[in-house]
Amino acid sequence: MPLSREIHLVDRPKGMPEPEHFAMVETQVGDAPDGGVLVQNLYMSVDPAMRPRLTAGQELNEAMMGGALGRVVQSKSDAFKVGDLVSNRLGFREYFTSDGKGLTKLAADPELPVTVHMHALGMTGFTAYGGLLDIGKLKDGEQVFVSTAAGAVGSVAAQIAKIKGCYVVGSTGAADKADWLRNEVGLDAVINYKETPIREAVEAATPKGIDVYFDNVGGDHLEAALRRMNTLGRIPVCGFISGYNSGRSAVSNLSNIIYSRVMLRGFVGTDFMHLYGDFQRDMAGWLKEGKMKYQETILDGIANAPNALIGLMQGVNSGKMLVKLAD
Amino acid sequence: MPLSREIHLVDRPKGMPEPEHFAMVETQVGDAPDGGVLVQNLYMSVDPAMRPRLTAGQELNEAMMGGALGRVVQSKSDAFKVGDLVSNRLGFREYFTSDGKGLTKLAADPELPVTVHMHALGMTGFTAYGGLLDIGKLKDGEQVFVSTAAGAVGSVAAQIAKIKGCYVVGSTGAADKADWLRNEVGLDAVINYKETPIREAVEAATPKGIDVYFDNVGGDHLEAALRRMNTLGRIPVCGFISGYNSGRSAVSNLSNIIYSRVMLRGFVGTDFMHLYGDFQRDMAGWLKEGKMKYQETILDGIANAPNALIGLMQGVNSGKMLVKLAD
Repeated sequence: MPLSREIHLVDRPKGMPEPEHFAMVETQVGDAPDGGVLVQNLYMSVDPAMRPRLTAGQELNEAMMGGALGRVVQSKSDAFKVGDLVSNRLGFREYFTSDGKGLTKLAADPELPVTVHMHALGMTGFTAYGGLLDIGKLKDGEQVFVSTAAGAVGSVAAQIAKIKGCYVVGSTGAADKADWLRNEVGLDAVINYKETPIREAVEAATPKGIDVYFDNVGGDHLEAALRRMNTLGRIPVCGFISGYNSGRSAVSNLSNIIYSRVMLRGFVGTDFMHLYGDFQRDMAGWLKEGKMKYQETILDGIANAPNALIGLMQGVNSGKMLVKLAD
Repeated sequence: MPLSREIHLVDRPKGMPEPEHFAMVETQVGDAPDGGVLVQNLYMSVDPAMRPRLTAGQELNEAMMGGALGRVVQSKSDAFKVGDLVSNRLGFREYFTSDGKGLTKLAADPELPVTVHMHALGMTGFTAYGGLLDIGKLKDGEQVFVSTAAGAVGSVAAQIAKIKGCYVVGSTGAADKADWLRNEVGLDAVINYKETPIREAVEAATPKGIDVYFDNVGGDHLEAALRRMNTLGRIPVCGFISGYNSGRSAVSNLSNIIYSRVMLRGFVGTDFMHLYGDFQRDMAGWLKEGKMKYQETILDGIANAPNALIGLMQGVNSGKMLVKLAD
């Protein structure tokens, strides 16, 4: 019967989320139910897609939802034993009980740090993989632009494109991230949109136009890309982080898609689950070969979960933003 | 050696095109060259897609380009004989000579008026057919919204969707066109966007949401549709007539495509040429069976070609806008 701390949404942010929109609540969690398990979360994930749910979708005054990696600490289930690692959607809390539904047993790769299963080798990486290859129909050697290329999804997308022999331009909003993309990841061109207007920067960096724009941003990034799209170009739309807090994601030159016959497509990872096996094999290989670099920003303790979400919106993280809840 | 009148673009309109942006020029056309033909145009087509070319693409002080149907009046070619009907891109002029490149011999269907080859049974209809079935992947019985549904492309798209058993909503900006869509075409719901705000009207007319939005308009129509798109909905984007003259086609809620995983795709008729044979058989059948209604607005004489283009932008036409150049 552990005491569990959990994070509630207590008010809906209009713009940027602030600490007062959240509250930490202590609650007593029961033993594993008959046929079920008691899980202790070890790490929880903080993602841009959480922001729209704060406006609509996430109930007020309940523990928030979010991806997490936990360990079974008590089991009355035949399907799980104590010590099993389980992926779950019940982040923002230290413990929970479950009948097993919604839990996915994780066969952690012993040659890799367990946290990679929460980004490059997890749904974050899969979103980049399927978005680029399935939705974006990337072909070897094409011209690629990735926004928020130092982010958790963007950095995987940019590196997959490099592995596929493409010319890859990435944008980011911080000098240290730009350095990482240039020197560690080795992109062909890196744009710091806080230093150079995005429109001019994208034009200068894409002399052969853009075949695939992997969009995490929307707004002025999307406008800049639309000006440069090649005929039959594709824009997999993973997120519009530019509009999540401002509420605006207006795009003024969408008509460009007509003349160049460009496709835009919003997507989520479940749109291409048939590729999950291929993804796991490819990505584990790339990670072990050192072809897939990553960064993690790990805050410690559940009390930091609101700060992690707020910081993510401000771009303070490098790569995947995680909160460590237990060893 | 006929005298031919032709229409030149002499100035680029900023907003709506005006008569002073055009000039009629008389020119002497030579005999058919060796191996070539002399063609007299009978009808020329006026299309919304011409507007962006007035801003960029159409050369100044040259005869304008546009779809036309002509008759061979002199031939020194083995491929054409006098009297052959030929589709061509050299509208806005009465006569021209050609080596035959760019001319497509038309096997006019004797059971149908020749002008249907310039709309329902021509590229206009093919654009609707392929846009809906190939780009839009329309399935029988889906929920469909078509903007400018009384227009040349929109009216064909809306009727194909009806033939496929779909629930079809059409928008138009004039009461007589709304009547035609309701009473002649038999759409399930008709929106007159000049009488009812488009957003409220689309919401009220689509209780089961929208699976396919065939977009000819962009702007506020697209915004209204994006609010109602069902999961995995598709938006074939044929034109953004709302932005052609205002220069604006801003869309503020494009982020909706992420949550509903919606596809937008700009297209032109040549994207699905593999369907042309199917289209010709289907459409000729529908026309003869009376399942495909159409309207034509035919102005007389080449001097009216600028008025036809200006009138099209103002929406004065019912259905396909044509200019008759000769019998």
